Amino acid sequence: MMQTMTIKSPLDMHLHLRDGDMLRLVAPYSAEEFAGGVIMPNIAPPITTMEALHSYRKRILQACGENLFLPYMTMFLKNYDDAFLEEAAAHVIAMKLYPAGVTTNSEEGAKNIDSLEPQLKAMEALNIPLSIHAETHSHNLFLREQNFLPILEYIAKKFPNLKIIFEHISSKEGLKLVADYENIYATITLHHMTLTVDDLMGEKMNPHLFCKPVVKTEADRDAVLEVALNANPKVMFGSDSAPHSKEAKESALASAGIFSAPALLPKLAEIFEKHGKLENLQKFVSDNARAIYGICPPEKLVLLDKSEYRVPATCKNQKAEVVPLFAGERCSWRVLGVE
Amino acid sequence: MMQTMTIKSPLDMHLHLRDGDMLRLVAPYSAEEFAGGVIMPNIAPPITTMEALHSYRKRILQACGENLFLPYMTMFLKNYDDAFLEEAAAHVIAMKLYPAGVTTNSEEGAKNIDSLEPQLKAMEALNIPLSIHAETHSHNLFLREQNFLPILEYIAKKFPNLKIIFEHISSKEGLKLVADYENIYATITLHHMTLTVDDLMGEKMNPHLFCKPVVKTEADRDAVLEVALNANPKVMFGSDSAPHSKEAKESALASAGIFSAPALLPKLAEIFEKHGKLENLQKFVSDNARAIYGICPPEKLVLLDKSEYRVPATCKNQKAEVVPLFAGERCSWRVLGVE
Repeated sequence: MMQTMTIKSPLDMHLHLRDGDMLRLVAPYSAEEFAGGVIMPNIAPPITTMEALHSYRKRILQACGENLFLPYMTMFLKNYDDAFLEEAAAHVIAMKLYPAGVTTNSEEGAKNIDSLEPQLKAMEALNIPLSIHAETHSHNLFLREQNFLPILEYIAKKFPNLKIIFEHISSKEGLKLVADYENIYATITLHHMTLTVDDLMGEKMNPHLFCKPVVKTEADRDAVLEVALNANPKVMFGSDSAPHSKEAKESALASAGIFSAPALLPKLAEIFEKHGKLENLQKFVSDNARAIYGICPPEKLVLLDKSEYRVPATCKNQKAEVVPLFAGERCSWRVLGVE
Repeated sequence: MMQTMTIKSPLDMHLHLRDGDMLRLVAPYSAEEFAGGVIMPNIAPPITTMEALHSYRKRILQACGENLFLPYMTMFLKNYDDAFLEEAAAHVIAMKLYPAGVTTNSEEGAKNIDSLEPQLKAMEALNIPLSIHAETHSHNLFLREQNFLPILEYIAKKFPNLKIIFEHISSKEGLKLVADYENIYATITLHHMTLTVDDLMGEKMNPHLFCKPVVKTEADRDAVLEVALNANPKVMFGSDSAPHSKEAKESALASAGIFSAPALLPKLAEIFEKHGKLENLQKFVSDNARAIYGICPPEKLVLLDKSEYRVPATCKNQKAEVVPLFAGERCSWRVLGVE
């Protein structure tokens, strides 16, 4: 008897689709299997105007082709005025804060956050969530997330009605903060649920597994995996699928980012089943995100069955090539189709 | 007035020269500036017979050309009998132990070491030093050196007259062990004196800075740098220069090893001067090694002057190409010539 499973409107709550040739290459992988996704605004130049937002959204929909896929747009948070934020509120699911100006220690960080406090205050009033890459620039890079926690705590306390999304959470210390603050939620990636620094470079070094925040210890990975498997209502799936060309990865200056889109649902099903938690997958990849963000994604039923799927060894069109996470590896579940 | 300095018979006490085209490419960089070096035996197949040893030594001398350079040979430690070790004693400076069979925890490790105890006992009697890559295979890779220390301690206690060389020491915990045991000495690389994990992947990831033991935290680097600058008599310079082709490095499975030969003396002079320790350089790159190993290297005076040197951006011949440490970077000292 064939084992099958239907996921209702799976959502990828943290997704980099890039632009141009790369967008056209990678968007279908997400659009075929997800009902929607939160689109990160860090293309070049970043999305900071309504015009850029609408135009990017259009290019995304075009790249998704016939697939039903709702791009939940975000903007790159900067010193916008209240009128702009009020207008933007209707078009974005969140404002994304990158730690560009956030430096070594937490006081310095807080000072930088200070300059954005008028915006955070307006966002709180307008009910625009803050999506945040929670890392400092400190040494060593394995502690950057941990070192950012005081800043996150400061924001959570100062703006108790601001919904804060701690993106791609990667450390057990980070998870503790999510548990401690009612207004902090988190996205969890497939790679932080499955990889440690030993996968990245325990034997050879694999630049395709290099990302920020960097994958960490077994204890961190296990902590992240556990809250995901339990579909803790404070967390939701967000792949942080972040393609870079094979050329940019296999180089003397490898870019950070893991392209996981071609592996996501099959691998998640495999992992949840392996741990006897298949019944929680629906919550983790959809229901929790609906509740946290208060969204109603398009109806899309994704049917999986338990038969072998092989993650592509490489993904390419005529102009771009990317090596995905788990390239060439077998998976015990596959996506059979969509209704 | 030009500032100059003469180093008497500089020695590189841990050196990978490889074989074939790569040997021909890299050997001159070491042979031009050093009076001798300890040659690691992990070519393919590894050096485990007298015949292979003599033949490799010959190929090395050929690759060094006209340069005066004494290769101090080592062999890959395995279950040799006493007669073989007695014969080898006259031809090797040390036996090299790789942690191939050494597994996750220290008991497992010790058990594996047990099987080599007859050899270690014979080496102790024959006064053959043990050169050791002091890492386990444990998770996470940043702790592998630390996790190996109990094994090293066990050997040091069990064979108090065995000279143990803790190769390419990279952690402050390791340095403490060297201080604690009379019969444990260490080699120090240029890269462990200068780099941290943030150089390896704090922003982009640079496979040319990937090595084992992996470069660690600022605290570790500073501890290693300090004993080197002070020319602590228990430590000596050993570059662990370990070339891999550009192709093997800039790939999805990057090999571990840093090719530092083209940068060594100029960069060491720059660092020692910067810290006001230039007077200790002679000890660190030669005298300490003479005393530790009891060797009399060939007389070779290497003259440096304080003028700009630029490390080559790449090193290649018709068949091989390697990217060196500090590729393309400026250095405030250069090697002027040799007498």
